[in-house]
Amino acid sequence: MSPYIHKVKYYECDPMGITHHSNYVRFMEEARVDFLDQLGYGFEKMEAEGVVSPVLNINVKYIKPSKFQDEISISVCLEKTSALKYTFHYVMKIGETTICTGESIHCFMENGRPVVAEKRFPGLAEALGKFSDGRIAGAEI
Amino acid sequence: MSPYIHKVKYYECDPMGITHHSNYVRFMEEARVDFLDQLGYGFEKMEAEGVVSPVLNINVKYIKPSKFQDEISISVCLEKTSALKYTFHYVMKIGETTICTGESIHCFMENGRPVVAEKRFPGLAEALGKFSDGRIAGAEI
Amino acid sequence: MSPYIHKVKYYECDPMGITHHSNYVRFMEEARVDFLDQLGYGFEKMEAEGVVSPVLNINVKYIKPSKFQDEISISVCLEKTSALKYTFHYVMKIGETTICTGESIHCFMENGRPVVAEKRFPGLAEALGKFSDGRIAGAEI
Amino acid sequence: MSPYIHKVKYYECDPMGITHHSNYVRFMEEARVDFLDQLGYGFEKMEAEGVVSPVLNINVKYIKPSKFQDEISISVCLEKTSALKYTFHYVMKIGETTICTGESIHCFMENGRPVVAEKRFPGLAEALGKFSDGRIAGAEI
Repeated sequence: MSPYIHKVKYYECDPMGITHHSNYVRFMEEARVDFLDQLGYGFEKMEAEGVVSPVLNINVKYIKPSKFQDEISISVCLEKTSALKYTFHYVMKIGETTICTGESIHCFMENGRPVVAEKRFPGLAEALGKFSDGRIAGAEI
Repeated sequence: MSPYIHKVKYYECDPMGITHHSNYVRFMEEARVDFLDQLGYGFEKMEAEGVVSPVLNINVKYIKPSKFQDEISISVCLEKTSALKYTFHYVMKIGETTICTGESIHCFMENGRPVVAEKRFPGLAEALGKFSDGRIAGAEI
Repeated sequence: MSPYIHKVKYYECDPMGITHHSNYVRFMEEARVDFLDQLGYGFEKMEAEGVVSPVLNINVKYIKPSKFQDEISISVCLEKTSALKYTFHYVMKIGETTICTGESIHCFMENGRPVVAEKRFPGLAEALGKFSDGRIAGAEI
Repeated sequence: MSPYIHKVKYYECDPMGITHHSNYVRFMEEARVDFLDQLGYGFEKMEAEGVVSPVLNINVKYIKPSKFQDEISISVCLEKTSALKYTFHYVMKIGETTICTGESIHCFMENGRPVVAEKRFPGLAEALGKFSDGRIAGAEI
């Protein structure tokens, strides 16, 4: 899986000259969309199958600011955190420096009912456990 | 009709410390929604009746900047500009100073077909022609 | 302290017809700005005095969705959570129903150095401890 | 000059399932930034030299909607439209289909005074007149 790159836009920066903190939640969504696309389970395919994955929680830890034109590299991994809840972990870096980490907790619903995602979507099963491999060590919030 | 007030948010301002120019297009929509609500033809009522009013053109003239916490007062009026096109005009002021003017051109569609809005929506008929009364003189772009 | 009201804008809603989850982080900032204004320590006054309060963490729990035109009432309170860290707690309701809770953790910096905010800003000292009064019970994430 | 690509984000789409019209103004800025970067006159270099180019007018014509994940290709060209005003023209396409055209009018200010940009910035002089070459024919609004 290759990391997702977001290049900071002028309109994403605030009067302090740095990326407004709310935008990192959007970058997390962009990286999650890309991660699921790479697995073959893009939003559109899921929506076509009647599956949605509402966001239950968002947690973000801001470490260093970013600014206009910075290229933020975002690594994503996926962990099963309870019977029906899945946590995406995000590590955002500029070069080698971690500037922000985050997590988003989701469930997966099909026709209005919660589903065990890694049974329903084999690609997600493969993606699970990638958190333990150290690839995005330091993602803990 | 009372003007719509938008108080500028921190996240709407850019590194120059002023409201990012793209946001005025959003303020215009807010004011249009409020204008139609005051007329009794809110977005939700229209959507419930299967009516949509796609935006065909947006034109904005930026006169003076605004900044965080500024209260922008937005006056709206409506003009019929061709057989099926309607132009909303907007004048945005801080106190007595006009900081921005704009216009948005729309048609109205019901079940996929264009409708003559002032026949379909008597409230809009009433609203038409308000541009000529001088209330928002200076709105021309 | 009166709660802050945010009326959901059309452009804040996503293809599911609900407020995009990233926007709640913006609503929290709006409510925090209003809370500090009510205390007499608005962003502008603080910035004029050379004080900034960077966001260190954001945590949001999404309970129910909101949609276009909903009026979200946001209560804020402030708690000291370590020697130099302060946590704002937020409870967002539509009518009597809690739809979202959140917290943001900040420090306060003056001329580049961390300050003990409740000594520097007497109004904040007064605001501290309001979490224990039950006013926004249920805010825990 | 290669066109700028913007891939539509989920949070840029509205309850109609299409890109909210305000976002095209942001895409225009992204494409303008990229165009100036390609010419060697990026925002950052200009700001470092004390040059700003405020937006005076924005005009957008919406032709067809775009939706989540669409790749919009944006061509930009530059025209001098009066002694001190410059117009950037934008043509946005998905594949071969033009979905939106726009223009933004700017002046260039150095230390608070208007400058004749193509004298001050030789790269811009080169870029002028590209509108007449038919490369982005159909850009007229």
